[in-house]
Amino acid sequence: MAPKVTYSDLVIIGAGPAGLMAAAWASRLGLNARILDDKVDRVQTGRADGLHVRTLEILDSFGLANAINEKAYQLREICSWVRAARLPLRAGYADCDKNPDPEDDSKIKRTERVRAKEEEHGRFCQLGIHQGFIEQNFIDFLRREGRLNVERNTATKSLQLDEALMSDHAAYPICLRIGRSTVTMNGDTADQGWRSPQEEIIKARYLVGADGGHSWTRDQVGIRLEGGKTKVHFGVVDIVPITDFPDIRISCSIHSTKTGSTMTFPREDRLVRFYVQLAETGSEGDDFDTSKVTPEMITEKASKILSPYKLSYKHCNWWSVYTVGQQCAPSFSKDGRVFLVGDAVHTHSPTMGAGMNVSMQDSYNLVWKLGQVIKGIAKPDILDTYNAERQSVAQTLIEMDREMCDFYEKGAGSDAHNYDEFYERFRTFLSGVGVEYGPNALVVPAREDGSRDSRSCTDLDKSRQTRGFSRRSLASKIPIGQRLPSFLVLNHSEANIVHVHSVLPADGRWRLLVLAGDISKASQMARLRILCERMDAPSSFLRTYTPEGDKVDSVIEVVTIHAAPRHKVELFSLPELLRPFDPKLGYDYWKCFANNNAGEEGDFDDAYAKWGVDKDEGCLIVIRPDQHVSLVCGLQEVEEVEQFFNTILVPQQRRKATAAACE
Amino acid sequence: MAPKVTYSDLVIIGAGPAGLMAAAWASRLGLNARILDDKVDRVQTGRADGLHVRTLEILDSFGLANAINEKAYQLREICSWVRAARLPLRAGYADCDKNPDPEDDSKIKRTERVRAKEEEHGRFCQLGIHQGFIEQNFIDFLRREGRLNVERNTATKSLQLDEALMSDHAAYPICLRIGRSTVTMNGDTADQGWRSPQEEIIKARYLVGADGGHSWTRDQVGIRLEGGKTKVHFGVVDIVPITDFPDIRISCSIHSTKTGSTMTFPREDRLVRFYVQLAETGSEGDDFDTSKVTPEMITEKASKILSPYKLSYKHCNWWSVYTVGQQCAPSFSKDGRVFLVGDAVHTHSPTMGAGMNVSMQDSYNLVWKLGQVIKGIAKPDILDTYNAERQSVAQTLIEMDREMCDFYEKGAGSDAHNYDEFYERFRTFLSGVGVEYGPNALVVPAREDGSRDSRSCTDLDKSRQTRGFSRRSLASKIPIGQRLPSFLVLNHSEANIVHVHSVLPADGRWRLLVLAGDISKASQMARLRILCERMDAPSSFLRTYTPEGDKVDSVIEVVTIHAAPRHKVELFSLPELLRPFDPKLGYDYWKCFANNNAGEEGDFDDAYAKWGVDKDEGCLIVIRPDQHVSLVCGLQEVEEVEQFFNTILVPQQRRKATAAACE
Repeated sequence: MAPKVTYSDLVIIGAGPAGLMAAAWASRLGLNARILDDKVDRVQTGRADGLHVRTLEILDSFGLANAINEKAYQLREICSWVRAARLPLRAGYADCDKNPDPEDDSKIKRTERVRAKEEEHGRFCQLGIHQGFIEQNFIDFLRREGRLNVERNTATKSLQLDEALMSDHAAYPICLRIGRSTVTMNGDTADQGWRSPQEEIIKARYLVGADGGHSWTRDQVGIRLEGGKTKVHFGVVDIVPITDFPDIRISCSIHSTKTGSTMTFPREDRLVRFYVQLAETGSEGDDFDTSKVTPEMITEKASKILSPYKLSYKHCNWWSVYTVGQQCAPSFSKDGRVFLVGDAVHTHSPTMGAGMNVSMQDSYNLVWKLGQVIKGIAKPDILDTYNAERQSVAQTLIEMDREMCDFYEKGAGSDAHNYDEFYERFRTFLSGVGVEYGPNALVVPAREDGSRDSRSCTDLDKSRQTRGFSRRSLASKIPIGQRLPSFLVLNHSEANIVHVHSVLPADGRWRLLVLAGDISKASQMARLRILCERMDAPSSFLRTYTPEGDKVDSVIEVVTIHAAPRHKVELFSLPELLRPFDPKLGYDYWKCFANNNAGEEGDFDDAYAKWGVDKDEGCLIVIRPDQHVSLVCGLQEVEEVEQFFNTILVPQQRRKATAAACE
Repeated sequence: MAPKVTYSDLVIIGAGPAGLMAAAWASRLGLNARILDDKVDRVQTGRADGLHVRTLEILDSFGLANAINEKAYQLREICSWVRAARLPLRAGYADCDKNPDPEDDSKIKRTERVRAKEEEHGRFCQLGIHQGFIEQNFIDFLRREGRLNVERNTATKSLQLDEALMSDHAAYPICLRIGRSTVTMNGDTADQGWRSPQEEIIKARYLVGADGGHSWTRDQVGIRLEGGKTKVHFGVVDIVPITDFPDIRISCSIHSTKTGSTMTFPREDRLVRFYVQLAETGSEGDDFDTSKVTPEMITEKASKILSPYKLSYKHCNWWSVYTVGQQCAPSFSKDGRVFLVGDAVHTHSPTMGAGMNVSMQDSYNLVWKLGQVIKGIAKPDILDTYNAERQSVAQTLIEMDREMCDFYEKGAGSDAHNYDEFYERFRTFLSGVGVEYGPNALVVPAREDGSRDSRSCTDLDKSRQTRGFSRRSLASKIPIGQRLPSFLVLNHSEANIVHVHSVLPADGRWRLLVLAGDISKASQMARLRILCERMDAPSSFLRTYTPEGDKVDSVIEVVTIHAAPRHKVELFSLPELLRPFDPKLGYDYWKCFANNNAGEEGDFDDAYAKWGVDKDEGCLIVIRPDQHVSLVCGLQEVEEVEQFFNTILVPQQRRKATAAACE
């Protein structure tokens, strides 16, 4: 019997964190999409276990952060311990040894205690939680939404790209042959919709390869990782430790020239992960046989490093051995049709706990763009930004990882630098909130950034012809291309205090943030009215790019945050565009917010001040569906916004005409 | 066929909020318990819809607050509107009319705007969310725990109490005959465990009647409500309003002498509840026919009150008519075996949004006591405190309700008082955090409170013979008998910032809070060591009342919060009692916390300062399983704690001996 042939706009291969993040987007955007995985079930124990601040913001945009935050270990402090430190240490805490005897190697000593500063960047702190729990939260999310199921036990057989169809973005040039093995599903009900035959051919418009370090998809499209493995081997164990080591519930780096190094990372359910260096290049490591390693050996080595503190365990949850290496793909996509995310295109050591985060962030960056192209909202050109934006992040990460591995091998405190200073350089980037995209088609730089445009960006020169620059001075503390920092503001109609990110959920919409300034002043209210008249015109970008029949906010949502004292402005004095009316549901009270000017509404943020926005001036901010800032311009510079969207979105009238011509 | 006879330690009749709270306790305590309901499913729409701060703390102690908090409307502001206000108003906000023309009755005017202050009392604010959502969260909780299912479609047929067995607390004097109708279950799977025969006789030790205003249980035990109904009728609608009234997303009281009064309470999913006074005593109300009321009529009347603002709707979620009345049962229990909770023993107007809260709090107060008695941990005498503690709350509530109804009938601002001043008197009590129990067997008053002991308490005089007084001066801002106010502290081992309530979950355990003071001082550490030596002695209350073979913290858990700078004290310098060791799991790192002294650890609470506890003195606080404070005494006054537990708990050695004698 010939295999069944089906059509899908998007196929995701691999249901790890990166694939599931892609599926979450596809579900939210209502795409005709599938997610396939060759394994029987999700990861049960171990693997990745660190979540950084930006990842939590992203999870929160899907409503998934709270459950994870409640279960996870919250990392608030990092300590360094050294055996026989030889160097003077910075003035530190009372319990840190400031001047250890260089000859005394009988015990390890705490040399440094650093309060984690990630919470300065946002609402969350770094978490320790095993990958499987995060996967389960995504799986539950997909079930609740009811659009995609993870199709497990599904192997990919062959992949062909039809070159002739590549230029037609409505075509299905991808031909993916899959098969489902007959292994018992162990009670997993996600696949009950599956029917024979066992083989199927999926014709797809776009493909996302999220199938890990040994990516089958990557091999099929002929992309090879560059870089290589070192001969440094680490053993990893997740145990419930029985120990008198006082910092066992703190993330520690422990270094001893005599007995080696270990790093610890506490976790949920009393677990602690130990990374233990097993062998070094040039010593026994050259022909080190990783197959002979046992969790007992790893713990025994950790125990020696910790001595005189004792370490043992009764319960080991997971263990593994890995060989340090840094690899990156030269390209993250093939012909603008096949895209690779996560471990498929970058691998590095787990030293920074970044892997799962960067992988999920790849998908978060990619799939809203795919969704907009698939739906005919945005031009296919925007897909080029995926490669530019995420490859750059991967390369920076790999450079950091090399430095970090070097640092850990040498040991904290061993080379006139200490952990705090070292880590400080990476902190903002690693937390994810410091990641900055562009300039490119989706990010309009400020004029003073022009000279930084060394990065090649195929469509940048073109777009420059029609669009201007962001005006950084209008929002001096908002880095263009970074995610918008979230602060607390008041819902104008409810007086409820909410985070700005809570009005930027992952639903695929662009947002125009109208920072209207102090509209209790007549002149400022007049400026706002003129802005809204322009945006309300039939030729406005709000109409041009919104499919006929859809709500005016379905592609670009206008959200206002004014800086008048909330009690001095009535909602109904604002133009209706900012509080749209629905004949069944009445007015929309959840699009207009008030700033907390200098604490007049309570002990929380003054968002205007934190963003560096003048209350008598205001500004417009275009925010991408992934919360990154595209453009900052003056409150009435509608033409700047117009020009920005002109370069990337598809006018809906034209699309209608084309569709008619095809029929 | 004769009905099946089964045995149960506890039967709960009714699965509304009060019954489900009782079931949640029973589940957590692992009781052999049942919960029966005569209806096919939970409430779907409408009914109660307000949650106060203390209720959210309680829900949080079962892990249920976050989901509810995310979905609900958060009440942050309250406004008063008046048509033709005749009285001078307090200096207020810019948008409040300070001097309305007494003759101008063409429109309603905002006369007052009050920021809700409940958040001052705790971590939550008042919420608006329909009863069914809360019930569903309880039902999901019970399913997750897997111990109790709501048995629906189950009618109670007869109830007999066997007087001869009453004095034997191990006996089953309650004989409850139930029957299950054959109505289709509409997909509800909670009852699948049910088997024929259709009738069953349950022999029970204790019974909780949570079966509402028309309580069958109450009738069976011959208790009659006292008080009566007025002739004031209110119409209630839950609608998605279409209106230009600017405060539609604020809780408002709107009064007009000409067109009547309405109160609004915004809710989840764009809904707003309107309470509209339909008829008043002495006017058409005397023979007002509530059966003729429609939601259109109610909204029409509200619309007239709001005029010139418009009000209409396309979607009505629920509506009802109620007649104001205040009723209370003279006793909340029968023979210490049958207990009544919620609407079964107190009814009042919904004006204060208190009903569902007080009902759930009844069960929260009662069922941990039942659990301790059923398990043989506590003496049956403690059950007497339920009646004393909760009847007093109900009576206070009913007095307030009378005043409140009177206030609303007359209209805010109409009688030289305004809403803010009026509400201020009730705020702390209504939020639930101001509710104070005792003095009684479970609450040891401070000496200066002795004169207040006018309330009759059967076992109080007896217990006085053997126990002392609380020393309020040691924790000057902790009202004895109220729930412990929760502040943020640091986990000593993890540096994680947590609320004290998070270490007081609803698991049925007593807690001894050791506020150890600044133990970086040798003298204070020495005091702590002596305390622990005494508590560790074989004759200590920690041993006496803990069943042999159980963990030392299974009945009374010792939790430490010290006030040393966290970095100056190592966990392992503390006595092991405060960080107990388990041979499989290692040390317990979640029982010792550090105070944030004067903000040295960050911008959060100094709990010692907020509790009024001296850092050089410290104290011991005994906390009930429902988070209320039983006793405050000196850091080394083990004998005070001992005497307190002596009066209420059952020594476990003695129980063992008795059991042996019976066999």
